Amino acid sequence: MEKDNSVLKIPYGTRDFLPAEAAGKRVVETRLAELFAQWGYEEVVTPSIEYLDTLGLGSSQNIGDHLFKLFDKSNQTLALRHEMTTPIARLVSTRLQDSPLPLKLSYISSVFRYEQTQAGRQCEFYQAGVELMGPGSPATDAEVVALAVTGLLRSGLTEFTVCLGQVEFLNGILNQYRLSSQEQEDLKAAMERRNLVELNQLVDELNLPENAKQVLKELPLLNGGEDLLKQAYDMALNEQSRRALDNLAEIYRLLKAYKVEQYVRFDLGIIRDFSYYTGMVFEVYAPGLGYPLCGGGRYDHLLADFGTACPATGFALGIERILLAIERQKLPMHSLPRDVYVGYAAGKETTAIERAAQLREQGKSVELAVSSQTEAEARESQQAKNYAAFEYIA
Amino acid sequence: MEKDNSVLKIPYGTRDFLPAEAAGKRVVETRLAELFAQWGYEEVVTPSIEYLDTLGLGSSQNIGDHLFKLFDKSNQTLALRHEMTTPIARLVSTRLQDSPLPLKLSYISSVFRYEQTQAGRQCEFYQAGVELMGPGSPATDAEVVALAVTGLLRSGLTEFTVCLGQVEFLNGILNQYRLSSQEQEDLKAAMERRNLVELNQLVDELNLPENAKQVLKELPLLNGGEDLLKQAYDMALNEQSRRALDNLAEIYRLLKAYKVEQYVRFDLGIIRDFSYYTGMVFEVYAPGLGYPLCGGGRYDHLLADFGTACPATGFALGIERILLAIERQKLPMHSLPRDVYVGYAAGKETTAIERAAQLREQGKSVELAVSSQTEAEARESQQAKNYAAFEYIA
Repeated sequence: MEKDNSVLKIPYGTRDFLPAEAAGKRVVETRLAELFAQWGYEEVVTPSIEYLDTLGLGSSQNIGDHLFKLFDKSNQTLALRHEMTTPIARLVSTRLQDSPLPLKLSYISSVFRYEQTQAGRQCEFYQAGVELMGPGSPATDAEVVALAVTGLLRSGLTEFTVCLGQVEFLNGILNQYRLSSQEQEDLKAAMERRNLVELNQLVDELNLPENAKQVLKELPLLNGGEDLLKQAYDMALNEQSRRALDNLAEIYRLLKAYKVEQYVRFDLGIIRDFSYYTGMVFEVYAPGLGYPLCGGGRYDHLLADFGTACPATGFALGIERILLAIERQKLPMHSLPRDVYVGYAAGKETTAIERAAQLREQGKSVELAVSSQTEAEARESQQAKNYAAFEYIA
Repeated sequence: MEKDNSVLKIPYGTRDFLPAEAAGKRVVETRLAELFAQWGYEEVVTPSIEYLDTLGLGSSQNIGDHLFKLFDKSNQTLALRHEMTTPIARLVSTRLQDSPLPLKLSYISSVFRYEQTQAGRQCEFYQAGVELMGPGSPATDAEVVALAVTGLLRSGLTEFTVCLGQVEFLNGILNQYRLSSQEQEDLKAAMERRNLVELNQLVDELNLPENAKQVLKELPLLNGGEDLLKQAYDMALNEQSRRALDNLAEIYRLLKAYKVEQYVRFDLGIIRDFSYYTGMVFEVYAPGLGYPLCGGGRYDHLLADFGTACPATGFALGIERILLAIERQKLPMHSLPRDVYVGYAAGKETTAIERAAQLREQGKSVELAVSSQTEAEARESQQAKNYAAFEYIA
């Protein structure tokens, strides 16, 4: 019979996780779920589908092109969620409105974005993250950064760098030079794309003194260790930028108490891809991977858009990217235990069932043969399926 | 500022899981993932979105009305998956085609069906299940039934009934009476809806001897313990139906070796809602819940539709229904541990961070205050958040 190949295909930007890949995903997700709970973060689950208007609140205007849209029976536009911060802001503003603050919430979910795929980023991908609603203090920012670092360590990664920035540092400089909001947007877009040629061109066209132009051109290069902060104070001739640096210095002081400062560098050129960030922002990079494993930051206005003003901070870890970094760094891949294969001779089915039950009660993972085999066949099955031990009921 | 309420709503048939609900879901899913792995089932993950044609292969013709459809950039019709058996059949026929049989696979995923919502069944809901591709033997059917029972026990349920049927028993009788396929479909539809009035009307209209009509009317009532099988043998005057009963008797013999027979009854009137079932079928019911917690059975032709002929059997457990049954049976609800709340006085932030880290290293779950508090305030926080113990860094 001829097969119509189309039924065998999957849509652009989607993927299957084969057993070895799914095992890695399961191990990392389980460890992160345990870790988040251990830090007092309570998991929530929101629908995969939201109203388009809800998702639009948290994002810049061009997000619509990247959403998977569909229509409900009354022809309202729905979309598959493209991130979890906005749905959780909706939840906090509705059914969790009366919960005592701070609220520490976590999630592990798939999200959907229609865009060019790349290694580690498909149109449907998995995120694990937290959102902390409470005082807009450096303590809360430090807690989420430390939790992100601990999550990556717990996932099995050892080498990565947290790049810590502050959107108000840049905003202060742009305001100081009295740039129009169009000019500010264009500059930020060039910085977000890390397109230095375009940035330099845009800056040269501005009506500013040469030393101001120099500051703007240097912004994307402002990254380094603790010394960088001192260098930045010299550039920050306005109150807004200086306060941003004070905030970063205080967060860093607390990160030392968490003993994670060795993973942290400053990067004052970070522009995150969601417009809702208002303070500290961070991204985590690993060697051999050109895009962040994790992104997050403070968003103090998003909840007000849903009617419940409250400062907030959080992050999202990319599960597939963590797994890819583990693979590229040749770290041990996660797998599930495969302890004993139980084979049996004809007529010994029920004895084999009882023996498998006994071994499972001892906590062993056991594959039971699905039909009688010779001992040699059973050994072959054991090896093909990578079971550590072998039992044969003769 | 006036809030547009629409951004606060969620689409029809979707739901949020608040922390207590999400904790139950996490506990049950984690236990099931562990159990499936312990029985040698390897997890796979497939995309939430498939081509409509792929999903259509596994289902009766009217499924289209119940799918959430969307379109890709080249205007092909996609849909959110409505069950996992068909996507896994696609996967087994493509990237897992060369894997040695038997294949024992598992999944924990959300699926989507546009239909009238009811308690425990929304338009998006969560399923955990297994698929066993290999010999079409009673041993494989018994293994999946035993695994479903063990999964329900592991989830915390104690009272439930597995109703075991066999679609070939009914098919044999319908063939024996030489009913047209339209007549067969109508009768099955009435039985699936358990609409006895409609069934009796349909039967009365058939051109059959009175004793044959009696048999057809009695079919939905054919349920009971081991004795029921003997009663059914008397009704099964054709080879096909008798072989179906032999098959059930052999599965039941093996279920005794698994020591789960006390949960099992026979129900020869079961008509499952997917057309792909070809042999043993089962549903699990719990007191106080009018719809099954679990459904499954043998589907020996579905893989051939994808080009890789292979017998298969499996089941899907409904996560929300399990949680609802636990609640309705007033069994202990699952929750995550909340061990210690750590509060601190002004200036004691870094000491508190270090103390929280120490407690977490001991395996405790710890919520750290987000700002300095008086000891009385910290005690209030501990109580509001239900932490068992309290520490205050003065």
